[in-house]
This record gives sequence, C-alpha cells and structure tokens, in this order.
Amino acid sequence: MEIGVIGGGSIGLLLTSYLADKHKITLYVNRKAQQKQIELNAIRLLKGSVKEKTAEVSTRRITELQQKDCIFVCVKQPEIEQVISHFAKINKATPLIFLQNGMGHIKYLEELPNPSYVGVVSHGAHRENDYTVNHLGQGEITLSSVTGDEKQLRSMLNQLNDNHFPFAHANNWNVLLKNKLIINAVINPLTALFDVPNGSIITNNHLHFLAKMICNEAAAVLQLDQKIAWEKVLTTATITRENISSMRADLIHKRPTEIEAISGYILHQTNEELPYTSFAYHAILALEQKKEK
Amino acid sequence: MEIGVIGGGSIGLLLTSYLADKHKITLYVNRKAQQKQIELNAIRLLKGSVKEKTAEVSTRRITELQQKDCIFVCVKQPEIEQVISHFAKINKATPLIFLQNGMGHIKYLEELPNPSYVGVVSHGAHRENDYTVNHLGQGEITLSSVTGDEKQLRSMLNQLNDNHFPFAHANNWNVLLKNKLIINAVINPLTALFDVPNGSIITNNHLHFLAKMICNEAAAVLQLDQKIAWEKVLTTATITRENISSMRADLIHKRPTEIEAISGYILHQTNEELPYTSFAYHAILALEQKKEK
Repeated sequence: MEIGVIGGGSIGLLLTSYLADKHKITLYVNRKAQQKQIELNAIRLLKGSVKEKTAEVSTRRITELQQKDCIFVCVKQPEIEQVISHFAKINKATPLIFLQNGMGHIKYLEELPNPSYVGVVSHGAHRENDYTVNHLGQGEITLSSVTGDEKQLRSMLNQLNDNHFPFAHANNWNVLLKNKLIINAVINPLTALFDVPNGSIITNNHLHFLAKMICNEAAAVLQLDQKIAWEKVLTTATITRENISSMRADLIHKRPTEIEAISGYILHQTNEELPYTSFAYHAILALEQKKEK
Repeated sequence: MEIGVIGGGSIGLLLTSYLADKHKITLYVNRKAQQKQIELNAIRLLKGSVKEKTAEVSTRRITELQQKDCIFVCVKQPEIEQVISHFAKINKATPLIFLQNGMGHIKYLEELPNPSYVGVVSHGAHRENDYTVNHLGQGEITLSSVTGDEKQLRSMLNQLNDNHFPFAHANNWNVLLKNKLIINAVINPLTALFDVPNGSIITNNHLHFLAKMICNEAAAVLQLDQKIAWEKVLTTATITRENISSMRADLIHKRPTEIEAISGYILHQTNEELPYTSFAYHAILALEQKKEK
C-alpha cells in the first residue's frame, strides 16, 4: 500500500521503519529540521543498543499532505485538531487510523467524512533523536473501526500484519480505548509525579495504594469491571516495569503532557467527585506550571 | 532560670542561643559528635548571612539529664517517646514545655506526673551544621498549659519573654495546636511532594487548588472554621514564601518526616474518607520509601 504516517514522534518513527519493508511510506512531520535530518540519515531503528536497520522513506511537511491508500495519525492529542484541518486535501474515502492515547479525539472522528479507525499501541518505543527510534519492548497494534467498515479493516490488517510487527483486531473500539485509557490514567500521572519507572506502581506500597484508588475511580466512571481493570494495570506495570512512561518523559523534557486527554477526560465524564484522579490531574498540571518558570 | 533544652535541631539551637543571654542553659543532644562540635565552637547564631552572636552553653548527652527549673523538649515527634523515658530522673514538679508539630505527643503529656505545657514556634530557622543556626524569620513562641498551671505559666512567660525573642500566651492549647496542625497539614506535604518553596501554594494555581481541598478536609475533621483556617494557611504561605518547609528539608536530606504526626493524625481522627489528605499522606510515604533505596 501507499501509506501516509503523520507525526515523527516515537510511534510515527517506529511504524514507519517497520512498514517501510513492504509498503511505500511517506512520513509527514511538523518541523523542517526533522525533515532534513531524516532526508540526510534515513530512519534508524535500534533494539536496545543494537542497530536493527535503516529505512529510506520520503519525508514531507504536514502542509504537503497528499492522497494515500491509508493514513496513520501518530501525533499527540493536543495536535489532533491542527492535523485534521489538512484532511480537506485528500479523498473522503481514504481510511484514517488514529493512534492517540485517551478518548478526546473520538469527537473529531465522528465528524470526519472519512472511514475512521482507532488503534492502541502496546510497543515500548523511545525516540532517541529526530531520526532514531529505539524499539524497547515488542508489543502489537490493535485496530478497531469507529466510523469505518469491518471488511475494509480486515483487508488493511491482512496487508499490515507482519511477524516482526503484528497488528490485531478488536470488535469494540470503545472497550479497546477504555481499557487502554484506564491503564494510562493510573500509570502515567503517578510515574510522572513521583519520577519513577512503571514498576514502582507494584514495588512501592504507597504508590500501589494510590494506583488502586485511581483505578477504582476510573473503572466506576468508565463502567469497567474494577477487578479486571486493576489486573490489567498490574500486568502492564509488570511487563513495562523498567520503562519511562510517556508522561514522565514529557515532564522530564518539559513538553506538554497528555493529562487533559487522560485524567481530564475521565474527570469530565461525571459530576461526581473523583478525588484521587483529581489530585493526580492537578499534580501534573502543577508540575507543568512549575517547569514553565 | 536554669533551663534544660532537649534537642539540637534548628529550634533547640535557636532557643538556646537566645535564652542563654539571661538564663543558664544546658543543651541535651543525642549525638556525641554534635556535643563535641558545640563544646569546640559554642553555638553560632546567624541572621541571613550575618553572624549575630555566639552563645557559650553547657552541652550534655540526653542520658545525663539533670534537675532544672524548666525543660524545653525540642525533638521531633518520632523521638518523643525515647526522650520521655529520661524524665524519671528529674523532680515530678519540674515544668516541661513541648514544642512539637502535630498533636501526637499530647497522649504522653497527659500520662506524665509533671506540669506540662505545649508551644507553637512561628520562627523561621535553619540548622546550618551541628553548632550553627540561621534565624531566617522573626516569629514568636506561643505557650499554653495542658496539665500545668496558669500561674506557673505566666511566671515562666515573664522570665522567658524578651524583645528580641518574644513569648506569647494562649488560653486553649487544643485550639493553638489545631491551628498550627492545619497549616502544617496543608503546606508541609505539598511543598515536600512538589519540591517547592512555601509561596508556591499561592503562586501555582494547581497547588492552590490542592491546598484548599486538604485545608477543607482538615478543618472539617478538627472542627475548625474552614474559611478562617484557609486564611491562616494563605497568610503563613505568604509570610514564609521563600522558606523550605521542614518536611521538604527532611525529604531532601533523606530524614524521616513528621507525616504521621501531621496528616496521619488527621486521618486517624475520623472514619470518613479524606481523599486529598490521604493522597498527600501516601505521597510522602511513597517518597520516603523511594529515597530509602
């Protein structure tokens, strides 16, 4: 397929470097400096400290978006609105695949004419620089249809799926995103606030307690089973125990976090008090405000 | 008077250096190294970076406690029990004055045969080393009787009070300590968790929100007026805006904090949920556990 990938962050680079084996990829980035770096060096994929491969792809600015067989959107929640403004240039039948955390982007998908899909990424990936991504943990990308079509999704999955970079299917996008959201709502703010790796949710008694409280609040609001949700949080924290969560990385690098799309989304789903989630939400915003100075 | 001061922390050193002008002071410390340092250098009082004076006092180990006209107890809550075991050696009529944060020590005072008093210290003081204390903010010490006698308290206050180091009187020890406790319950854990000076409670919107929530919970439990309590918190945070709170200093220096005597005490006063206080409490314990490693 001819595939567009929007966003040169860790997931955009990871996706591009794997899909480039079988498909013709155009990576759309926001910054001219990153475009130049990729044109100069190609994209480098590391696994740990070992170089896995180099992928030659064409790199364009997002303003130069063109018609593709399908387009992956790999920017963070806060940049979604800006990206969507460029979709006027492409065919209304082009399938769009959104890989954001949180659920704040669903409202945009429902308004777009295009068949739209969402995906959850369970890979561990860290962007080392503008053209190098480190694939730290093997996972998969699970896709589900929101306003798209099951047949189209199955056909895309067949073409995308690869032993080295698997794609999976989920029937219910809402359950898929909620299950990811609750894991992010627990692990991300706590690891960012306490500046600890994901595994500290399990090894530190008091973080364990706070994680449980946040998980219970989120499960009640999202109408998920508390016990199953908590088991998923613990499993994820165990598998990714050495990882730096994306929110922690954002704070360390003084980038805006996705707290609004994660804890903020949960808080806005209800009129009830969610004090542990609220504390975590304000804590991350307090740290962002502190780092501005 | 012949005065015993137990504890060579910032308050013990501050008290000793001022009271030594008019009284005969014996400072009781726990560590032999500190005793040696004070014997060698005397106690140095700074105001900012300016040297104010040097006070020559006799220094003893706590195991050598002897009869005095009155004894100030300036150790932290967790060390109170150990100090009290030494009071068997002194006359049961000797007045004892306790200057701890929190209210966890009241149960010990009520069991002691001695007339006992509590005090609240509003000075800003920082211990620079084993024999040097920096008097950063002029305040006062307010005393109140718990199992003592008003006449004895008035007489002591007359002898202790000094323009350069004022002492005040409060009728109700319970109200005195509660008003101090609520300020500590708000400012200490938040400034320690976010590693910020006290004034951030006012300047950072999100810390301001969290402070208000903790203040409301604590006021409800301690049966204090929420509005008045909040005003006192804001006033204290303003006056001490540049200060490092004691809990923040304890975490920085990897010392145990007084979280149990402050937030822990409030949580144990009720069966109701105090989620913001609970989050702050577990957050400080999580940081203590993290720093142990």
